[in-house]
Amino acid sequence: MPTVKAYAATHADLPLGPFDLERRDLGPLDVQIEILYCGVCHSDIHTARNEWGATMYPVVPGHEIVGKVSAIGSEVTRYKVGDTVGVGVFVDSCGHCANCHDHLEQYCENGHSQTYNSLLQDKKTITYGGYSTHIVVTEKFVLRVPGNLPLPGVAPLLCAGITTYSPLRHLNVKKGDRVAVVGLGGLGHMAVKLAAAMGAEVTMLSRSPEKAQDAKKLGAQHFVLTTDPEQMKMAKSYFHYIINTVSGVHDYNVYLPLLKTNGTMVVLGAPPEPSTVQAGLLLRGRKSILGSLVGGIKETQEMLDFCSEHGIVSEVEVIPIQQINEAYERTIAADVRYRFVIDMASLK
Amino acid sequence: MPTVKAYAATHADLPLGPFDLERRDLGPLDVQIEILYCGVCHSDIHTARNEWGATMYPVVPGHEIVGKVSAIGSEVTRYKVGDTVGVGVFVDSCGHCANCHDHLEQYCENGHSQTYNSLLQDKKTITYGGYSTHIVVTEKFVLRVPGNLPLPGVAPLLCAGITTYSPLRHLNVKKGDRVAVVGLGGLGHMAVKLAAAMGAEVTMLSRSPEKAQDAKKLGAQHFVLTTDPEQMKMAKSYFHYIINTVSGVHDYNVYLPLLKTNGTMVVLGAPPEPSTVQAGLLLRGRKSILGSLVGGIKETQEMLDFCSEHGIVSEVEVIPIQQINEAYERTIAADVRYRFVIDMASLK
Repeated sequence: MPTVKAYAATHADLPLGPFDLERRDLGPLDVQIEILYCGVCHSDIHTARNEWGATMYPVVPGHEIVGKVSAIGSEVTRYKVGDTVGVGVFVDSCGHCANCHDHLEQYCENGHSQTYNSLLQDKKTITYGGYSTHIVVTEKFVLRVPGNLPLPGVAPLLCAGITTYSPLRHLNVKKGDRVAVVGLGGLGHMAVKLAAAMGAEVTMLSRSPEKAQDAKKLGAQHFVLTTDPEQMKMAKSYFHYIINTVSGVHDYNVYLPLLKTNGTMVVLGAPPEPSTVQAGLLLRGRKSILGSLVGGIKETQEMLDFCSEHGIVSEVEVIPIQQINEAYERTIAADVRYRFVIDMASLK
Repeated sequence: MPTVKAYAATHADLPLGPFDLERRDLGPLDVQIEILYCGVCHSDIHTARNEWGATMYPVVPGHEIVGKVSAIGSEVTRYKVGDTVGVGVFVDSCGHCANCHDHLEQYCENGHSQTYNSLLQDKKTITYGGYSTHIVVTEKFVLRVPGNLPLPGVAPLLCAGITTYSPLRHLNVKKGDRVAVVGLGGLGHMAVKLAAAMGAEVTMLSRSPEKAQDAKKLGAQHFVLTTDPEQMKMAKSYFHYIINTVSGVHDYNVYLPLLKTNGTMVVLGAPPEPSTVQAGLLLRGRKSILGSLVGGIKETQEMLDFCSEHGIVSEVEVIPIQQINEAYERTIAADVRYRFVIDMASLK
């Protein structure tokens, strides 16, 4: 396959710019995808700027990919040219460990291959993400995108959507459960929509009173201003689950008292510094803190089908790729409702 | 009932000494117990020394109580004079909240009455614990002690035993499960015995190589020296559950990598300062940290019956009450295998 157009960061301190990327030749099980839209995840920024310390430059970010199949390998059976498909956070895994066997490729014991800034299973070939016109992915890691959903809003489902769907399903959230969501960003707004669609009574917890209206539009029934001691007191021991989407440094102990006996706070963000936990708040009420990381391929397909059935997509602001550096600044400032999505036509 | 002999702390900085205690008159549902043995729990020391900041002096500690019924109220049906009985960490609860209804009196929403340094449900009468010759307890909170177990070793089951039994049962620990225990003290040695009796493969995690032999005697199949990076590497992703009994300040992040995918670390101690958690260690493998606090009355009876069936008691060093202050120092120095138990005959 010829060299394709992409956007890359070449150094932690430099803005992203145009980059010529060589994609691999189509193997027998490979699907070549013409990328139509790619979401902008906060992880893209962390990686582009080497904030996690492991960036291999040049890096092409992007792991919320939606496109059309433009070619297939000789042994591909699941997809045909023209199909609308998606690619999420990883593009391969070992395939034979206990977790891969259990459809938990996100926890592959031998290390899955992330969509960018990672190594394929040969442990040599560097991966490059969705800020480009095309990508080549082995068919097992390609998702089918249901036909009834607007494509720009589908892109963020491949990361923000599955990251919130997976723990909600793991905890078997259902009608009558009380779910609180902390953080109304890319992940948080999906958590609200998905938990509401599962029948839960959803409450937004936020420090910003202006988020109340938005949260209700997205499906939250209640809003608790976490800076108001009176409201926090009212919400004490109320929730079965708290979905905590905050990835900055913050205090878990603020939220734990809001859980009922046997309640669980799911943490989806990995703050750069460790969080503090007062064990006493867990002991009194047999409460737990549970981590969760995206979701497996089977569950991601299930999530897309669930979203299709319930008419759920992410709320997005579509940009041309030439605005990516400005979009990064606005993402950091939380000045987006709720996800930037790149229209890849702008790169062609 | 007349005044009874007891030992009390009258000030945070003073040793415990003899104290005359007035027990309440026998109500219709009350059981009067002649105390034979009382275990020495670390909580006793924290409270006697006001280390948790809420001590009402004078305080009579002790919540691992074994004795004989010496009188019963007019409406008592469950016990008769001469029965061998036990009293644990609490002596009453509201009885009508959702948690009391679910046999989770330890999480009573209206506040249970602890055995000492607490208020009865009238929210006025202060409670005094087991460092005394007699106690009066409403029959619902009295446990039946099976006949086949040596009584000094039964006393610590009422706190250390149920505190470790309850989370093991809650997590449904069974044959084939791999359970690690952190901290080989009063709680830890019970966790080893109970998990082994449930059929689990038990591993002791410790910084002290000299604990290896003891741990194996108690039923642990393996020992991992946590200061040895090679051993820790071997134990990575190995355990379904970690029972962390440490109550001092310590680093949770040392242990989290040892959990398998979906693994849970149970924390039973409430360190005086918050612990730190790297959320990334929870995210990678959908791991959780779960708090647990003693157990309900129904479950405590079940634990005593389980111990009877499996011939399990606590390992104890029996002391006269006159040695209580020395025992406190030795408990703090972890110089006891594994629980001091006061022979109350020494007080009579």
